[in-house]
Amino acid sequence: MNISQRGHKVPPSPIRKLVPFAEMAKDNGVVVHHLNIGQPDVHTPPQFFEALSGFPDRTVAYGHSAGFASLRKAMAGYYRRVGYDVETEHVTVTTGGSEAILFAMMAICDPGDEIICFEPFYTNYNGYAVQAAVQLKPLRCNIEDGYHLPPRERIEALITPRTRAIIVCSPNNPTGTVLRRDEMQTLVDIARERDLFLISDEAYREFVYGEVPHTGVLEFPEIADRAVLMDSLSKRYSLCGGRVGCLVTHNPDLRRTFLHLGQARLCPPSVEQHGSIPLLSLENDYFQQVQTEYKLRRDTVMRGLQQIPGVVSRTPEGAFYVMARIPVKDSGRFAQWLLTNFRLDNETVMVAPGDGFYATAGLGLDEIRIAYVLEVPKLERAMFCLKEALAQYQD
Amino acid sequence: MNISQRGHKVPPSPIRKLVPFAEMAKDNGVVVHHLNIGQPDVHTPPQFFEALSGFPDRTVAYGHSAGFASLRKAMAGYYRRVGYDVETEHVTVTTGGSEAILFAMMAICDPGDEIICFEPFYTNYNGYAVQAAVQLKPLRCNIEDGYHLPPRERIEALITPRTRAIIVCSPNNPTGTVLRRDEMQTLVDIARERDLFLISDEAYREFVYGEVPHTGVLEFPEIADRAVLMDSLSKRYSLCGGRVGCLVTHNPDLRRTFLHLGQARLCPPSVEQHGSIPLLSLENDYFQQVQTEYKLRRDTVMRGLQQIPGVVSRTPEGAFYVMARIPVKDSGRFAQWLLTNFRLDNETVMVAPGDGFYATAGLGLDEIRIAYVLEVPKLERAMFCLKEALAQYQD
Repeated sequence: MNISQRGHKVPPSPIRKLVPFAEMAKDNGVVVHHLNIGQPDVHTPPQFFEALSGFPDRTVAYGHSAGFASLRKAMAGYYRRVGYDVETEHVTVTTGGSEAILFAMMAICDPGDEIICFEPFYTNYNGYAVQAAVQLKPLRCNIEDGYHLPPRERIEALITPRTRAIIVCSPNNPTGTVLRRDEMQTLVDIARERDLFLISDEAYREFVYGEVPHTGVLEFPEIADRAVLMDSLSKRYSLCGGRVGCLVTHNPDLRRTFLHLGQARLCPPSVEQHGSIPLLSLENDYFQQVQTEYKLRRDTVMRGLQQIPGVVSRTPEGAFYVMARIPVKDSGRFAQWLLTNFRLDNETVMVAPGDGFYATAGLGLDEIRIAYVLEVPKLERAMFCLKEALAQYQD
Repeated sequence: MNISQRGHKVPPSPIRKLVPFAEMAKDNGVVVHHLNIGQPDVHTPPQFFEALSGFPDRTVAYGHSAGFASLRKAMAGYYRRVGYDVETEHVTVTTGGSEAILFAMMAICDPGDEIICFEPFYTNYNGYAVQAAVQLKPLRCNIEDGYHLPPRERIEALITPRTRAIIVCSPNNPTGTVLRRDEMQTLVDIARERDLFLISDEAYREFVYGEVPHTGVLEFPEIADRAVLMDSLSKRYSLCGGRVGCLVTHNPDLRRTFLHLGQARLCPPSVEQHGSIPLLSLENDYFQQVQTEYKLRRDTVMRGLQQIPGVVSRTPEGAFYVMARIPVKDSGRFAQWLLTNFRLDNETVMVAPGDGFYATAGLGLDEIRIAYVLEVPKLERAMFCLKEALAQYQD
């Protein structure tokens, strides 16, 4: 019995598709250092678990489709502390940042419409574009430029009558690049002048290390009705499994559509919404600790990469990822070989192949994404594994 | 700035769109009896909360995209106790039964494909059909037949080259109808002979009251590769806000697509998955208590309806809903009037207008859906409110 063409087109996650090989290695007693997935090892703040144990009801009931009013209010308060003009009504709680991507694409695009994105990009935009029957129009950024944006005219050259939006992610997954204010201003100007939405994925807002400050899409009042902020608590509070994210926009038509899309799926998870409320009031010192730790980790990875012959990379300004060009022909085959063949004192390392972060076929085959989500000593060991592996590997 | 046509087409929930009027009434101190939403007042089993307090990790991490292996195993065990041939690998955990609908539609249909459904039907099939760009082809069932299925030839008459599936829900939301085995067999035969999938929404499996036993789609091995079971823990364990559901199928292509769709959204909520595991082992006496209570409630509602002049309804065999034809021209206006104008000793009642459960324009305008999710004394009071309201109401 045949499934749909769409079903065949939904891509497997490049970050997760090698998981069976990692499981086999672990079943054989091998220590696998996970640099493949953006799952921080940082503890979820204890306030989350305290709130869970105080769940106020004996029935886990449906909540409001736009999210608990108390959580939306707490989120709006967080954004105002960041400096954004956000009221409770502007916030729609989503089931993770993932659902925010789906809702934004569905509300903005009809089937066949186009969204401009910058390669390499967050791989799951691909999966959601297939689901929403949206065409991603990628513009390549280069490792030599630290994956900063190409010139304005190259972006505008991609605009067609079907273009509805530009999607941008800063601090970036998978490159770690933080867009400078002038780059964001360019995108804002294009959106305004060419009648496009600007969708901004800011899940890594707090993960910046001093070189370039974060610039958010809500800092540009001239596109208030075109700006859509997609956000997530997953990384900020080490709450990846909580599935709590949100959409923020000043455009009332979008918000009404987000509500209707939300009504179809009834509500985000009630228990985890409840647990998230106190997190939104955490003081800045929580983030400062996290930033200090991740900056150490980033610098550890960059030192490691610089010691490997033939590797090209630039120090990223944020998030907890770095893309590296490595001297192999097919990083997917290399990543699998790491799990199936390579052992260093019974250890190995797992990385995400680069091609899954591109929409253009053939790109990214000599790149990998490294997520620096381990403690520094483990990261040092993982980078040493990678160096030894590249020395041994025969293409 | 214009949103998409799709965004405009996603319908508001007919169950939730009157919520602002209910909130206004409550703000004015009016007691609103909620018969509009299938939110049981039964407590979530304490095992759920006990499991939460024993969450085994200090980081709420991503889980497997197909759900926790431990939860999938517990779900498979539950299905085997029900009598189905289900192994862990056949189960994909979804973020509520809602996501199961989306994944099934996306995996089975390309944009423009058709699914046959039976009116009235679960209203959110409409929302997901818009999202997936699927055409629902409704066949009307009649209140006089207790909303049982029309003859086979009328179902087959709807099949076109674009038809990919039949979707059925038994025990039914919104009608409460439980399909007899011969009705399910007819759908199974059509699916097999006409090369269609049969998608079966069985979220109310345990809610049957003795007249007609439940027949599940997995009881028909002749369509093992065409059968898709959509399920939910929301009603079975009074866990509506938990957002834990699943898809079960023996078709490996579907399962692979469900996994890829699942990878795009990373994972279902980790905390609520963890809390759900012990629920799947609850003994039958838990369901027997629930059934006894809901049968009392059903009979209370039916007694109430029989005492209202001009109301037509049939005693439903399951779920916790009943559709009733009432002597009004526009049940949406009537339902709003109940909230804004009608008061009986400062009480009123909230019902779901019938037209939202139909895809065919003009149908259901003289029907309402009643969810009997309140204790018997409150239900009696609510039905008395409804009777008095219909006596007063001027179309």
